[in-house]
Amino acid sequence: MIRLHWLAALVGAAVATQASAADLTAQVRAWRSAHEPQVVGQLVDLTAIRSIAADPAGLAAMANRLQAELAARGFEARQLTGAAAPPVVYASLQTPGAKRTVVFYAHYDGQPVTPAQWRSDPFRPAMRAGPGAAADVDWRAAKPPYDPEWRLYGRAASDDKSSIVAFLAAFDALKAAGRRPSVNIKVFWEGEEERGSPHLAEILKANKDLLAADLWLIGDAPVHQSRKPTLYFGARGDVDLEATVYGPLRALHSGHYGNWAPNPAAMAAQMIADLRDPDGGVRIPGFYADVRPLTAAERKAIASLPPVEEGLKKELGLAASEGGEGLTASTMRPALNVVALHAGDGGRAIPSQAVVSLDLRLVPDQTPEHVRDLTEARLKALGWTVVHAEPDAATRATSRKLVKLAWGGGYPALRTDMDGPPARAVLAAAGRAAGGPVAVLPMMGGSVPIYLFADVLKVPVIGLPIASHDNNQHAADENARLANLWDGVETYAGMMADLSW
Amino acid sequence: MIRLHWLAALVGAAVATQASAADLTAQVRAWRSAHEPQVVGQLVDLTAIRSIAADPAGLAAMANRLQAELAARGFEARQLTGAAAPPVVYASLQTPGAKRTVVFYAHYDGQPVTPAQWRSDPFRPAMRAGPGAAADVDWRAAKPPYDPEWRLYGRAASDDKSSIVAFLAAFDALKAAGRRPSVNIKVFWEGEEERGSPHLAEILKANKDLLAADLWLIGDAPVHQSRKPTLYFGARGDVDLEATVYGPLRALHSGHYGNWAPNPAAMAAQMIADLRDPDGGVRIPGFYADVRPLTAAERKAIASLPPVEEGLKKELGLAASEGGEGLTASTMRPALNVVALHAGDGGRAIPSQAVVSLDLRLVPDQTPEHVRDLTEARLKALGWTVVHAEPDAATRATSRKLVKLAWGGGYPALRTDMDGPPARAVLAAAGRAAGGPVAVLPMMGGSVPIYLFADVLKVPVIGLPIASHDNNQHAADENARLANLWDGVETYAGMMADLSW
Repeated sequence: MIRLHWLAALVGAAVATQASAADLTAQVRAWRSAHEPQVVGQLVDLTAIRSIAADPAGLAAMANRLQAELAARGFEARQLTGAAAPPVVYASLQTPGAKRTVVFYAHYDGQPVTPAQWRSDPFRPAMRAGPGAAADVDWRAAKPPYDPEWRLYGRAASDDKSSIVAFLAAFDALKAAGRRPSVNIKVFWEGEEERGSPHLAEILKANKDLLAADLWLIGDAPVHQSRKPTLYFGARGDVDLEATVYGPLRALHSGHYGNWAPNPAAMAAQMIADLRDPDGGVRIPGFYADVRPLTAAERKAIASLPPVEEGLKKELGLAASEGGEGLTASTMRPALNVVALHAGDGGRAIPSQAVVSLDLRLVPDQTPEHVRDLTEARLKALGWTVVHAEPDAATRATSRKLVKLAWGGGYPALRTDMDGPPARAVLAAAGRAAGGPVAVLPMMGGSVPIYLFADVLKVPVIGLPIASHDNNQHAADENARLANLWDGVETYAGMMADLSW
Repeated sequence: MIRLHWLAALVGAAVATQASAADLTAQVRAWRSAHEPQVVGQLVDLTAIRSIAADPAGLAAMANRLQAELAARGFEARQLTGAAAPPVVYASLQTPGAKRTVVFYAHYDGQPVTPAQWRSDPFRPAMRAGPGAAADVDWRAAKPPYDPEWRLYGRAASDDKSSIVAFLAAFDALKAAGRRPSVNIKVFWEGEEERGSPHLAEILKANKDLLAADLWLIGDAPVHQSRKPTLYFGARGDVDLEATVYGPLRALHSGHYGNWAPNPAAMAAQMIADLRDPDGGVRIPGFYADVRPLTAAERKAIASLPPVEEGLKKELGLAASEGGEGLTASTMRPALNVVALHAGDGGRAIPSQAVVSLDLRLVPDQTPEHVRDLTEARLKALGWTVVHAEPDAATRATSRKLVKLAWGGGYPALRTDMDGPPARAVLAAAGRAAGGPVAVLPMMGGSVPIYLFADVLKVPVIGLPIASHDNNQHAADENARLANLWDGVETYAGMMADLSW
């Protein structure tokens, strides 16, 4: 009864005249300015939760916390379980009179960590005055407003816990300002994105009705290097490959056996050189056959991006880029990245094996399955015996070049139509929230499983990133820049209360 | 006075008829059979001492212990210090009437360790019933004689602490049997061999008179794979190179930057492929120009070795060897070994750098200096900017392919004349101790700094290894096989009491 009474009050509010979009941003900004300790405190709290694949209890704790946060704000919140995946935090809030439903997506899991490589514990969030070697800041003792260049360091602080905090803060700001949403809101926060979302398709298929919507907004990934608020209309796909190259059954003295025992580190190096040319081109026959050309609109969006190339190279200490194209043009192509390469334990010995971790980034219309087949065919053509489990003695005894391939879960890329009504509505609302044009990427270089939403749910999908490009995402010392979080709160508020088509 | 009296007694003994060599071995074996717990206990004690470069206190403790062991046996024992090196344990014992002086060399330092890769703590020696996954054995509770296939696991247990223990046990056995040495004995046990003996030349030069001798016997390296007692007449030289390949200043998300940011792991792989062909051939112009051909005697010795190739390939799970020659023939050539290759921390990111550890094994008449020059010239010809210290921003900004080279201390190879009188005497005494012909290698694949002894001291140098070929030397789970230790005691006794020319 109480609940119905509250909804009736909202319906009444719906007839009130909405303030302008500019007022909206001003109201949200004022609320945020008055609540910086609370917003930062929430990001600190969420970052301290060990929600990584290696820690199922941490993932469960994170899901419970997020469900509680949403329920406390009046959402119908629950966890979608059943698949052998961490729970999806799902929530919905109807807006009386709204004709569109928007789902806000983010993931609450983070990449694995190697704590020794971090300046501080990845799950004890530390505020610092900026990037790199910046000094620690005692933000709890500081008087707001905080310096927006401060960054909070911790695993998943930006990828994606900042998006989650921005969503919650934007909602609180709207409520405090008495602004009702312009759309029905649904939330879908998953917990296995950093593992490649192996169960996402199953979860979407099992919950098609529950997830019915007119648009998905993806709160993942960094903004453009110009630091402008950014929208993206697609993302590269991804498939991981761990290749184990076998040498002698045990490591051997490199003097007594060097030149006689095959060296798996050298073999792995040759394998990489045989798969990838020095400019990043992929040496796998057929690899580029499925690549869909860019449309005129997509090429125009790329050409309109603020130039960042020279600044980035300077920031990153690079003399040149691979391929020599601009960053966005480069990432419109598929990539074969070597993300790890390990052999040898520090002694002067021929290693027993070498492990190569590859990360293949796909573009429309490549599929992980076809790329897998082409890659394995290429290796076989190069003389490799390809196995998918630990080789037995007979296989070792007959295979001069032996590699075990372990393929990770992958998914294809997506590029959403940039000219449809929801796309135009989002572009307009984002521009109003930002007070000017935003950076528009036809496709992000990074991967989020947005192909699935389009494929399973037949819905447009647009990316709404807020992390800074220099957030050390996926690496040690990941961090969230406060200015990006503040921008995110305003953009999220615009998407909740200023979106209509 | 007491000392002079003891020497006078020895002089008296020198006129007594020596028992035959066969009797000698029988006497030594009988003593060893009666003292297995003491000999093993000493190897356990020495292996437990952390005498590795990372632990200077462990090196010092080891030197003190060895000096004490020698002094307790009547040697004049001291430590040669002064160079910025761990002390050399030096000792001498004159044999009245002897006309030849033999120096017994070994090193008491061990390779670095990565304890996580060991089955048990590398400095808590563990006895096991055999190689690989063999069960632990409580040797202290077992009743001797011990199974000679048992192995003691621990860093440096075989390389070279077994040689040191064999020397001490052989000396004790001779003393117990009332057998006096046939030569004057000197001991030279160094503590930085696994680092490439950077100060050895300086120490030898500073102690030329002290070290005057007719022969050096090198108690280092493994025996032939046939498990026969072995002599070697040379060793490959060595020079280490750690190459750091630079990518972006920080690790970058492999999606957002993959195809644009240069990938140092892929660059390192290409560099390796550019330096070394798949059959181990070295792709450095001029690299083979200084290689001295084998003599007829050397080729004959190689041809006389028991065949081990097929058994070794089976034991090591290998379908083929690099180059397709026999093991000994392969290791007569110089080698470029990749002993480690590391990039990436486990996240899906483009690494900031890649580190390649190379180990170049040299043969006469190559020199480390010339090999360094040729390698750097090759890299420059391949387009690499070569630096020797951390590059500054200007260097990064102008170098598309940037590598830092850190060369380790190296030394050239040596092959000793196999036809000289001391060589013939050693071959004969070793054959008598073994009761038949021994395996003779013109040059060992592994490196010991024996070039220096010949170069500085103008003395013949012959290798007297005792470790088993499958001792995991330089790798995790290094171990000493008891049968090899027992053979070693007998061979050492022969070299002390049955050597004359």
